[in-house]
Amino acid sequence: MGFVRETCALGEIAGRLGWDQETMMAPGSAPQRAEEMAAMESVLHARKMDARVGEWLDALEGADIGEVEAAQLRLIRREFDRATKVPAKLASEIARVTSAAQGIWAEARAAENFADFAPTLEKVVALRREEADALAQGGDRYDALLQDYEPGTSAAEISTMFDNMRPRLVALRERILGSEFTPVALTRDFDIDAQMSLSNELAIGFGYDFTRGRLDKAVHPFSSGSGNDVRITTRTAAQDPFNCIYSTIHEVGHACYEQNISQDYLLTPLGRGVSMGVHESQSRIYENQIGRSAAYTSYLFAKMKDAFGDIGVADAEAFFATVNRVRSGYIRTEADEIHYNLHVMLRFDLEQQLISGALDVADLPDAWNTRFESDFGVAVDKPSNGCLQDVHWSVGLFGYFPTYSLGNLYAGCLNEAMHAAEPGLDAEFAKGDTSRATAWLAQNVQQHGGRYTSADVITRACGKEPSEAPLLAYLEEKFGRIYNL
Amino acid sequence: MGFVRETCALGEIAGRLGWDQETMMAPGSAPQRAEEMAAMESVLHARKMDARVGEWLDALEGADIGEVEAAQLRLIRREFDRATKVPAKLASEIARVTSAAQGIWAEARAAENFADFAPTLEKVVALRREEADALAQGGDRYDALLQDYEPGTSAAEISTMFDNMRPRLVALRERILGSEFTPVALTRDFDIDAQMSLSNELAIGFGYDFTRGRLDKAVHPFSSGSGNDVRITTRTAAQDPFNCIYSTIHEVGHACYEQNISQDYLLTPLGRGVSMGVHESQSRIYENQIGRSAAYTSYLFAKMKDAFGDIGVADAEAFFATVNRVRSGYIRTEADEIHYNLHVMLRFDLEQQLISGALDVADLPDAWNTRFESDFGVAVDKPSNGCLQDVHWSVGLFGYFPTYSLGNLYAGCLNEAMHAAEPGLDAEFAKGDTSRATAWLAQNVQQHGGRYTSADVITRACGKEPSEAPLLAYLEEKFGRIYNL
Repeated sequence: MGFVRETCALGEIAGRLGWDQETMMAPGSAPQRAEEMAAMESVLHARKMDARVGEWLDALEGADIGEVEAAQLRLIRREFDRATKVPAKLASEIARVTSAAQGIWAEARAAENFADFAPTLEKVVALRREEADALAQGGDRYDALLQDYEPGTSAAEISTMFDNMRPRLVALRERILGSEFTPVALTRDFDIDAQMSLSNELAIGFGYDFTRGRLDKAVHPFSSGSGNDVRITTRTAAQDPFNCIYSTIHEVGHACYEQNISQDYLLTPLGRGVSMGVHESQSRIYENQIGRSAAYTSYLFAKMKDAFGDIGVADAEAFFATVNRVRSGYIRTEADEIHYNLHVMLRFDLEQQLISGALDVADLPDAWNTRFESDFGVAVDKPSNGCLQDVHWSVGLFGYFPTYSLGNLYAGCLNEAMHAAEPGLDAEFAKGDTSRATAWLAQNVQQHGGRYTSADVITRACGKEPSEAPLLAYLEEKFGRIYNL
Repeated sequence: MGFVRETCALGEIAGRLGWDQETMMAPGSAPQRAEEMAAMESVLHARKMDARVGEWLDALEGADIGEVEAAQLRLIRREFDRATKVPAKLASEIARVTSAAQGIWAEARAAENFADFAPTLEKVVALRREEADALAQGGDRYDALLQDYEPGTSAAEISTMFDNMRPRLVALRERILGSEFTPVALTRDFDIDAQMSLSNELAIGFGYDFTRGRLDKAVHPFSSGSGNDVRITTRTAAQDPFNCIYSTIHEVGHACYEQNISQDYLLTPLGRGVSMGVHESQSRIYENQIGRSAAYTSYLFAKMKDAFGDIGVADAEAFFATVNRVRSGYIRTEADEIHYNLHVMLRFDLEQQLISGALDVADLPDAWNTRFESDFGVAVDKPSNGCLQDVHWSVGLFGYFPTYSLGNLYAGCLNEAMHAAEPGLDAEFAKGDTSRATAWLAQNVQQHGGRYTSADVITRACGKEPSEAPLLAYLEEKFGRIYNL
């Protein structure tokens, strides 16, 4: 349907504007851009619920069509239903409130004052609840929100896996922090241009196609776009080259997913990654299971010595420990592979309670701090290190957090299956050659875009349903080796 | 009307995509981008002829509204009428043919074979004639096309001025090329980064606001966007720093026009430059009447010595001559202030004949070459130096060429009026201070955006109607001085 294809093309344009805003646009252009974006969103919203789409979907109901066409219809139907179920007035109220809420959150965080943000958060929670009720039509409220980010899954399914994972992660975390061993930290400065040039080289090594994309700097790294215009960003800090390097590899994972989707699906609903969780599985397996492996870091160690001279780390084994250093900390985005999932589970549990009404916004800081101390063994010292640290809830993102850990969990499954299917990968990683691994991921996950549901695509790739077991085995093995546990 | 404002915002987005394509986009993204642009154009086209706009315009017919509102309505009405007068089938056929024609033109130019391009050009001419007839509704065909670029003017009005100008320019050209004096040419290399850094500084000096824009490189320099996001591009060549410097100043002229339009008109039909001719008057007065003046070039001479060391030119007077060197040449875009208008007039006369049918496409090369030899005193040696040199006709731009010289002519009028109103500008230009001049232009031309017609805005600024006299006087005085005529 040409109309849907045009809508996909317009969606790509909206994405490009977002990229421009974070990388190229001058600050004084921001108010005008907000109005441009609003115009674009209004066009996109109107098209998603256009009556012609509904009529077309109804006419095709029960028609004898192929599997791919059926998958396209499923996604078009989902978007159409979502757009038509939510009353226009509510949708615009949510847009209005969340747009202001982000600024209020940022000010409250800077002022370390949760009370300044609480009334706004209450409004956002109330509006998203109302929206969830409209979407759920009698079903579970939180599950309805989850569908925006991880369609086809439920909080109950996720909880089963997360609840199995949490005690073992807490225990692993305690054993690591209680160990005698402390990896060396980097202490010198690293030339920024050399960091970018190395990142560029690593991105190419991981298969990122620069003829259909580009790498720039942004405050918060991201990947943007689908099909044949997929752009990535990274950031640099003189004292922390890993920030630049692993942000790049992470975004390359996202970008390769989009770049490797079958060209048959270009500018159609199938032509995008199927869910946030599967997307995160690609970024994480590139970044962690491959990029932070002993084999790959031995290659990276040599590259860094070439680029920067003596980096103050004795050998590849010590460098492997440095890259994977586990440290207690308050901030999710700075967390290592162990702490990261504990951060997410905390948010997942609390946001379910906020949406169900079991937890009042006023009681959020206490609930956060209590849970944090229990899982992390440290008391939260200030709101910016606690429940005010993330932007997500201010802009109404409820149901988004669990997809981060779901991505890690899927990455664990894929990593196990990939090494089983392609023996001897480590020897290639040690030479910086990830091509057989990325080809396996392209073949088994990426090419399919939105054709299968997220659990299906992982199940098909791995030959079994996703579970937390491979991720836990991987973490216990890897960190057991590094910390001599 | 919110709908029109949204359309303006979407138009800005389309412009930004064009900018991105020329500056940032990877080459492999081009086919996808073409589809994205087509989707955007289709949305914009549908909105321009949306029945709601027509109903709204009809309802306001004869209403008691202010002058500014009336000007807005005039532009909305013009765009609505244009969109509704042209049959949809013809509009899409023009889009289809011109989109392919550009590639065919480029290949024919590379092959130096006009015959390869002739059938395509015939199609484009026929389609644009058909469109012109639909638009003219009994009026003059060529004038109907002219309205897209220079609304409110006619070929007859332009011809009167151009016909007065041509013999005096031909005579001036002959006197210059027959003179004993030859300005020094630059022969060394100039560091590219230093060229860009100097361009940046000059752009700021001319009043370009980098907090609402940016400067990048592009193959063909351009300015893009309106209101608070106006971006410019330039290009660099090691042996020709003037290309970078004067491309920048030229685009700064265009950009300052857009940046200085009253913020009251932001994202409305009045919030853009009123015509191509007035736009070009701003770029040209910045570039030529100010930027290539004896006063300003004395400042630039010092800046270039600071940036590059000895540039091989003895003093400021010699540098003034170097900057304004007149040379015979085939190519419009490389022409000096004298030859440039001769190039344009040739195209203006020939394209009127093509559209009226007085000249067949097959006879175009002969007509071009004959006229060229008569005005330039040189025989055309190959099609790429003759009628295949410009992209314009291939993409259907008929009525566009005259706006270049109209811009020069307006710049001449404005320059005369500006110096009369603001005595002593040259002493400031010699210090690199153009602020009083650019403030006068902002006040008398730029701030008005689309509020007055193009002849009106020039007349209001100058206190008299536009004519070719001031430009000719300026050229004869300036080049008389340089070449001791």
